[in-house]
Amino acid sequence: MLSSLKIKPGRLMKTIHETADMFGAAFPWGKDPTETGLLRLALTDMDKGARDWFAKEVKSLGCEYKVDELGNQFAIYPGKDMSAIPTGVGSHLDSQPTAGRYDGPLGVLSGLEILRTLKESNYVPNYPIALINWTNEEGARFPYPLLGSSVYAGIKPKEDMYSIKAIDGSHPTVLEELERIGYKGDTECAFEANPVACHFEIHIEQAPYLERGNKKIGVVTGVQSYCWEEITVTGKSSHTETTPLDDRADPMLAAAKMIAKSREIALKYDGLVSTGLIEASPRSFNVLPETVKFSLDTRNYDDAKLDAMLVELKEEFAKIAEECIGKDSKIPITIDYNHLMTSRRAYFHEDCKDCIRDASHEVVGEEYTMDLVARACHDSKAMSTIVPTAMVFIPCRDGLSHNPREFSTPEQCEDGFKVLMGAVLRYDQLRASRA
Amino acid sequence: MLSSLKIKPGRLMKTIHETADMFGAAFPWGKDPTETGLLRLALTDMDKGARDWFAKEVKSLGCEYKVDELGNQFAIYPGKDMSAIPTGVGSHLDSQPTAGRYDGPLGVLSGLEILRTLKESNYVPNYPIALINWTNEEGARFPYPLLGSSVYAGIKPKEDMYSIKAIDGSHPTVLEELERIGYKGDTECAFEANPVACHFEIHIEQAPYLERGNKKIGVVTGVQSYCWEEITVTGKSSHTETTPLDDRADPMLAAAKMIAKSREIALKYDGLVSTGLIEASPRSFNVLPETVKFSLDTRNYDDAKLDAMLVELKEEFAKIAEECIGKDSKIPITIDYNHLMTSRRAYFHEDCKDCIRDASHEVVGEEYTMDLVARACHDSKAMSTIVPTAMVFIPCRDGLSHNPREFSTPEQCEDGFKVLMGAVLRYDQLRASRA
Repeated sequence: MLSSLKIKPGRLMKTIHETADMFGAAFPWGKDPTETGLLRLALTDMDKGARDWFAKEVKSLGCEYKVDELGNQFAIYPGKDMSAIPTGVGSHLDSQPTAGRYDGPLGVLSGLEILRTLKESNYVPNYPIALINWTNEEGARFPYPLLGSSVYAGIKPKEDMYSIKAIDGSHPTVLEELERIGYKGDTECAFEANPVACHFEIHIEQAPYLERGNKKIGVVTGVQSYCWEEITVTGKSSHTETTPLDDRADPMLAAAKMIAKSREIALKYDGLVSTGLIEASPRSFNVLPETVKFSLDTRNYDDAKLDAMLVELKEEFAKIAEECIGKDSKIPITIDYNHLMTSRRAYFHEDCKDCIRDASHEVVGEEYTMDLVARACHDSKAMSTIVPTAMVFIPCRDGLSHNPREFSTPEQCEDGFKVLMGAVLRYDQLRASRA
Repeated sequence: MLSSLKIKPGRLMKTIHETADMFGAAFPWGKDPTETGLLRLALTDMDKGARDWFAKEVKSLGCEYKVDELGNQFAIYPGKDMSAIPTGVGSHLDSQPTAGRYDGPLGVLSGLEILRTLKESNYVPNYPIALINWTNEEGARFPYPLLGSSVYAGIKPKEDMYSIKAIDGSHPTVLEELERIGYKGDTECAFEANPVACHFEIHIEQAPYLERGNKKIGVVTGVQSYCWEEITVTGKSSHTETTPLDDRADPMLAAAKMIAKSREIALKYDGLVSTGLIEASPRSFNVLPETVKFSLDTRNYDDAKLDAMLVELKEEFAKIAEECIGKDSKIPITIDYNHLMTSRRAYFHEDCKDCIRDASHEVVGEEYTMDLVARACHDSKAMSTIVPTAMVFIPCRDGLSHNPREFSTPEQCEDGFKVLMGAVLRYDQLRASRA
């Protein structure tokens, strides 16, 4: 299927590195100028730069271009039936604070490379193709991941997301930053108002299973379930120098024991528990804090196991709080749980998986193709609740991601792009065959 | 000895509460307007307010007034021999971020109450009395405690202390903030240039031993030893959602286990280990940090035991770092120790202790007086390295301090002030008897 297309080898990698260099290259780790990470937090000036560039590129390809109220960018490449709902391909251009160059940009730029290739090959698909850059996928600057795609999919109300505050600077809201950088668009942010027929996405695996299995392409069959909570442990703030151990109700000790215990529970249930954020208050070298707040990110492939992990974490944390109260302390240790989100196990669509699997067999062969479940969340998770969806994974070095050293080879990226293109065109033909 | 003096009951408490209300009252915890804590960080506008007030009060009593290069304020109350080196009494007006009303202010304001009482009683001591407000005793805003007295005592060079940065705002230095609030004085900050003959200080105990022993006055015989270190644990920053446990080199897990272990070591050596500060970087919910930095405050009454604790902490931390490296991680976990200070066991001066003990026997009686070792550091620790020094302790409720609920009764404060005055006047006579 791909043989009729004029693919330009190397151009995708060039685009990945040129856009990284222009918009947020940071944290060099090697001698080559491309060996850096990326800092492009959502709705910052750097993100605006990448967005402006994206708009210019897709317009030059003859795409219809729209921005919705949440800043999601839509580029509609023409098909034979211009009145039909477009086939969707999307990912995100924003990054984590110490990110690599691949992650979301690989998805958007592979989509762009598809449109470039189709144009240069004079290939007109049956239906239009919508290439989408989703806003704040990372949830790093505004602590709600998949923000743009979640509003689009009707999972979260627009107003709730507008009011989320940035973790940096003077804590501007999503709405304030959208307005500041000029990306609060006119198009309604809703599937019903601005639909796509499906959602395809390519991403690095962010785990080492493809690499260790010597596979080149992962057909992602779904996404594991997870829960995000903020835990606030409150005890007694007092003097580090003078307070006898038996008089302490030390939330730092309790939080430390909880974090250590959470690893044991992850092991027991074959899941993951992680703490990325921690904060003690008040902040002084010689004052035991009154509160210690930390994040808890709990994951499992199995919904029932995730639920069991959450129950056991709470039971063990309660025990630890009790144990950490000194026998002479009149003040207890209390725990407050702020539940941020639970995302249940997602199962991707058979049609989309089949298109990816077939394309992979064409590009890299069956022996280098494997099915797997995504551990991380992606915009495709939100999209899978409303339209047929699936993802292409490519290997990344040591499974490392959300790290400047994140790396996939040019060959791995190129293979992934070809599989994505093959899958999108197969789905276009599948739709036509059923019309 | 005190019977000839016109003590005004209640005035000291009035001064404590009035100055707290004017300069930094915060964190109310009870119904009475005096039931709040204090927020008066060193060299802030609030600290400047308290300093200006102090200057005005001591000048109105006829004191000679000097400010040295580190902002230490000296008020010299006249004695019969104006050419003699003054008897020193001091403490500090700055506070922790969530402090109580007593701590340092009790010391400075009790000294002020001595001067007021002497003046109203027309009592002229043999030698001048220097009342001192030391700069940044707490080490809370500028992380070097006893900052002003340490330069004065020749323990630290002036320039080193000038360059210490505030932990807040745009991190101004000590020198910048001294200049900003107008407290970089002309007097050389050095014992040799501006000497005192001794140092007396009153303070709340900040521990529960006086209260539990039903004692009213503690004669402080010295200060326990301690060590301050910043520990930086460095591992591998990666994705919380996807990184298998075996691939992690998680510095958060390692730091948590280290903090938990430090409590065991404190118990084993009958000492204290505390963590007041902790910081993970980068900061994101779904990124395992690359570094976790935490403070470690280790204390013991015995120098040898302190040393043994420090050795064992390092041994155990190294083991934990090793254990926390996943079997598939190519990146290790490393530990960096930033040693901030070690303060060895201090022994206070027999003459000063005797003066306090005798005064306490007069004011509250022998049965309510006990000797004890200070756990926390005070300006008297620095001063004890250069001149005869001792301290008066009074009980505080539940031993709680560095907390808005810190509380001593008016009677306890008044008793302490009388003992301090009795001790200062006894020392004045002792000096004269030996002249």
